[in-house]
Amino acid sequence: MEKPPTIKDVANLARVHAATASRALNPSTRAKVSTRTANRVLEAAKSLGYAPNSAARSLRTKTSSVAGVIIPDLRNPVFPPIVRGIEDALREAGYMALMGNTDGDEERERELLLAMRGRQTDGFILATGRRNDPQPEDRVPTVLVNRRTDSSEIPSVTNDNNAGVHATVQMLAELGHERIAHVAGPQALSTGWERYRAYLDAMAAHGLAVDPEWVTYSEAFTEEAGYEAAKRLQGGVTAIVAGNDLIALGCYSALEERGLECPTDVSVVGFNDMPFANRQRPALTTVRIPHYEMGLEAARLLLERIADPTAPAKRVILPVELIRRASVAAIKSVH
Amino acid sequence: MEKPPTIKDVANLARVHAATASRALNPSTRAKVSTRTANRVLEAAKSLGYAPNSAARSLRTKTSSVAGVIIPDLRNPVFPPIVRGIEDALREAGYMALMGNTDGDEERERELLLAMRGRQTDGFILATGRRNDPQPEDRVPTVLVNRRTDSSEIPSVTNDNNAGVHATVQMLAELGHERIAHVAGPQALSTGWERYRAYLDAMAAHGLAVDPEWVTYSEAFTEEAGYEAAKRLQGGVTAIVAGNDLIALGCYSALEERGLECPTDVSVVGFNDMPFANRQRPALTTVRIPHYEMGLEAARLLLERIADPTAPAKRVILPVELIRRASVAAIKSVH
Repeated sequence: MEKPPTIKDVANLARVHAATASRALNPSTRAKVSTRTANRVLEAAKSLGYAPNSAARSLRTKTSSVAGVIIPDLRNPVFPPIVRGIEDALREAGYMALMGNTDGDEERERELLLAMRGRQTDGFILATGRRNDPQPEDRVPTVLVNRRTDSSEIPSVTNDNNAGVHATVQMLAELGHERIAHVAGPQALSTGWERYRAYLDAMAAHGLAVDPEWVTYSEAFTEEAGYEAAKRLQGGVTAIVAGNDLIALGCYSALEERGLECPTDVSVVGFNDMPFANRQRPALTTVRIPHYEMGLEAARLLLERIADPTAPAKRVILPVELIRRASVAAIKSVH
Repeated sequence: MEKPPTIKDVANLARVHAATASRALNPSTRAKVSTRTANRVLEAAKSLGYAPNSAARSLRTKTSSVAGVIIPDLRNPVFPPIVRGIEDALREAGYMALMGNTDGDEERERELLLAMRGRQTDGFILATGRRNDPQPEDRVPTVLVNRRTDSSEIPSVTNDNNAGVHATVQMLAELGHERIAHVAGPQALSTGWERYRAYLDAMAAHGLAVDPEWVTYSEAFTEEAGYEAAKRLQGGVTAIVAGNDLIALGCYSALEERGLECPTDVSVVGFNDMPFANRQRPALTTVRIPHYEMGLEAARLLLERIADPTAPAKRVILPVELIRRASVAAIKSVH
């Protein structure tokens, strides 16, 4: 078997010192050599099939250029574009992502964090945050994406949940709806909690009363849990503000089961504008969040944090946009 | 700052020798200690927040318990459940996945492979295979998922493309269709090529002629490319076998643009049964592939291969199932 090429072989081919080759090959020190030299070294490395020994470098520098990305479930369509944004921004900085899914299980999350730390992960991006999560005990840089904690000690990238729900309620009020229900997401998650609070606020702002029968809570951000929660709605509502798009699809099923048509009988609005929301029957009115940009932004915050762990914890809130489609209509008649 | 706990601290707390603690903490040697001891050590490690130093272990054992997973684009809905299956099977074996997207760019794929090898990746699972890809030069264990190469030297997990397309053509023939078109996927990919070949075979098997005007080629497995290819169809076809579900959605758009209704005027069948295929308008008839199981199987093949790199290269072909939905109908009238 041939011996794998070493940094010396690369340096010889590129006609530079080994130290220069090493600097050129390490993304975090590449700026110390000229672009031309860096390119020559990278070309030489590629032509030789040189793979720098990151395990040795990890021990020496105590960094791995690997970030851990932990999400609830990649099969929830909101996450793939977020993860893709994270990876694209990490890659530009010479980083890669180790991935893990928790299914919302806190024990599994702890195991993943431990296993990733064992692999010298430089930092974490978590889409699994719960509102009451404690500050991480160690000082591994961590950024939350999509969800955040109630305390402001961990940097986060979230959406303007408040503005999204206010725009939704305003549209429904303008269409003549008064009996507006909310099938809320889990209240232990900032996304569920903030949207629920915004619903109460927005109803009050439009002078609309909220009957307790019009609010139910979905146990998870899934179609099934949304369906179960929607079945518990009472009181002849004419519109539903759903906690997210998957919950909205659960509302579709619950309405169909009761022989009610959307939007003729009941309007439904989701949140996220997940892929294929426009292809649902009826096409789903929803609040568009910038999935991919959230991922990019989260990765950038993490890289900043790795570079300077003592920098203040930024909280980035990205703007949202109400996208009106076929699932809402003006109210049929005043009761 | 406190010193991080060491393996000795864990061993002391669990009242075992350091070597035993080390064996219990390493998934590949855990079977050498009793379950009770292993659990005690794992509990001790957890309570101390012990993170084994994998970089040191990587240098010593030349393995990292990390696998590289490279796919075209996580935003294609066929990949998230495959990736999830891969991760679940890897995790059971104490492995984690480093993730990368190529957008089908071969240069980007080479860079990713190099960067992942530099991180001591023990093996690769690639969903990016092209039919004419060479055998990897080095001996890093590699498994292909969903797509395979023409040569049989690399283990692979694919679907029964042939049976899926045969079932599709048979259903359409039984509904009275004769002018059956094919909007094929890229022919450099096994999925595109095998389904195209199966279409020709199945048409011949049913005694149906194929007019060259009824076959067009999509440049990519995307909705946009499928739309462009579907626009080039000629010859008054009454049914379309699409290369995959995204291409089928492109066919929907092209038909709508020509004022044709699916399924009244033209039936459309996809391939993959991607998430939300049932929620399209009309609900898409398609061939269901076992996404999650493909991922599980690919990870198992890789782990086998890592354990014994000289074992014969298995090719696993998983069964598929035709799922009939609203996008197909009996032919309106015989021309």
